[in-house]
Amino acid sequence: MVKLSRSRSRRKKNKHPPNPVSLITYLELQRARIEEVLHRLVPQETAMPPTIHRAMRYSLFAGGKRIRSIFCLEAARAVSPEPVPDIADISSTLEMVHTYSLIHDDLPALDNDDYRRGKLTCHKVFGEATAILAGDALLALAFQVLATLPHTPAEVRADLAAELSRATGTVNGMIGGQVADLEAANDSLDPEKLEYIHRAKTAALFRASVCLGAIAARANPEQLAAISRFGENAGMAFQVVDDILDVESSREELGKTVGKDILQKKVTYPALYGLERSRQIAAGFIAQAKEALRPFGESAARLQELSEYLVSRKA
Amino acid sequence: MVKLSRSRSRRKKNKHPPNPVSLITYLELQRARIEEVLHRLVPQETAMPPTIHRAMRYSLFAGGKRIRSIFCLEAARAVSPEPVPDIADISSTLEMVHTYSLIHDDLPALDNDDYRRGKLTCHKVFGEATAILAGDALLALAFQVLATLPHTPAEVRADLAAELSRATGTVNGMIGGQVADLEAANDSLDPEKLEYIHRAKTAALFRASVCLGAIAARANPEQLAAISRFGENAGMAFQVVDDILDVESSREELGKTVGKDILQKKVTYPALYGLERSRQIAAGFIAQAKEALRPFGESAARLQELSEYLVSRKA
Repeated sequence: MVKLSRSRSRRKKNKHPPNPVSLITYLELQRARIEEVLHRLVPQETAMPPTIHRAMRYSLFAGGKRIRSIFCLEAARAVSPEPVPDIADISSTLEMVHTYSLIHDDLPALDNDDYRRGKLTCHKVFGEATAILAGDALLALAFQVLATLPHTPAEVRADLAAELSRATGTVNGMIGGQVADLEAANDSLDPEKLEYIHRAKTAALFRASVCLGAIAARANPEQLAAISRFGENAGMAFQVVDDILDVESSREELGKTVGKDILQKKVTYPALYGLERSRQIAAGFIAQAKEALRPFGESAARLQELSEYLVSRKA
Repeated sequence: MVKLSRSRSRRKKNKHPPNPVSLITYLELQRARIEEVLHRLVPQETAMPPTIHRAMRYSLFAGGKRIRSIFCLEAARAVSPEPVPDIADISSTLEMVHTYSLIHDDLPALDNDDYRRGKLTCHKVFGEATAILAGDALLALAFQVLATLPHTPAEVRADLAAELSRATGTVNGMIGGQVADLEAANDSLDPEKLEYIHRAKTAALFRASVCLGAIAARANPEQLAAISRFGENAGMAFQVVDDILDVESSREELGKTVGKDILQKKVTYPALYGLERSRQIAAGFIAQAKEALRPFGESAARLQELSEYLVSRKA
């Protein structure tokens, strides 16, 4: 705790990077918390029919920093000093949706990836049919969890489901971004299209992650707008850094097929702007994200720190 | 209207089949109503990115009786004499979910069907990647519509989303049924497994269809339990009849690949019990369905008629 506070006050002065040890400890504790909730909410491998639950759990527990869930938890904390009912369950739905999108993106008909985080992808282990259905099931489960939260008023449950469904949809949501991404492969590079893809494919779920936390904490409209702006910009930064790491990983290990963006001729920030300019763009998004947090003051210290972590991470 | 009333009073005496002309007119009117709502709720083909919306609309408007939506509308009417706010929008989500399941079921990795209702399947026209994402998008859109219904109280919206998510899920829901169905192909025939598959894959969505209508009409727990029993049994009857029609269609045209259940070695009622016994089983489910409607009296006349139609239909 001492370390955490020191890190916060240091960050507040905006002169030093956050203490990496304390942040890493914090991230690890939160990750464990989210995974415990996921273990409880996803049907056991013995539940009928077992195959689908094995496939869902295989991909859900194949690693990952749970950064979207952690954003959700911290957005709730930024809005409300009180504990927010069901917040861990709410935050876990982001990982269900994120994992659904990874399973479907990895399919042979889409990105055709055999490995993800160093492990065989869902369809390589369970076959394509089960992988498609496991993705479907995780998407449906996310909405089931939100709609049936035990300690959350109905109007909040409905708002949470609405927010998540918009983020997963076709209009400025994940599916729209994925379609545009598939169509853009092999196309000429176009800055507007690239930004649309990243906004829809990645930033929309980051925005939803923090908005779910803020909605659950009963944010007022101004707070919700600010946290939404934070999530959108942090999500953009995350994706630009992901593009950069994909290029850099041609030399290092990232746990997925190396330099696959290049191999698949994906439109990326480094491809369009080069590595150095891409780093500046990521830093710009993070600056905007941090600016959006200003009204929350010290209660958003961890979110500030997390957004810095997004651009400084190495994997 | 005269015809409809005559048909109702005839059915009430339980001596004559319903007037086929009036029922057909009724079904056609309702179908048109649902399709108008779907046209409004699904993003236009011009909305970015156009491909995904074209694919969603292609499959959504490729025909179909909209029987699940009509069940939803009539369940609301059975429960409440007053008009139910948003009921057409609510009923349309069943078609979104049904179409999502057809698109994914038809994929090469699953049933590998080139035709559905006499038209090329979604992946044959738009490719597998877009078909997978169009299915995903219809599932997400269904939840978005329910969560954001403009004239429905939040507690009802949350209950509707919860009900639909359970029906689409892995535990006694559509995905569970589909997985068990895929695994059962080529297996020895097993009555228990067969019933589980039909209950989960088909009856769950029929049950949800009527439960959505009943929930929207603010059914009390007894009414909801009765309507749920009706939907479950009507759904079982529908699937058994579907199995029978698949066999019979080896001689007639049904608009899909002929006798595909046999070709794919699916477990079906005719395969296990023969045609004649299967017809009796379907009639038994319908009898139970109609029995469940008894407490609703005359207000469920159309549901009674619809359940008879389910077993007498030829396609």
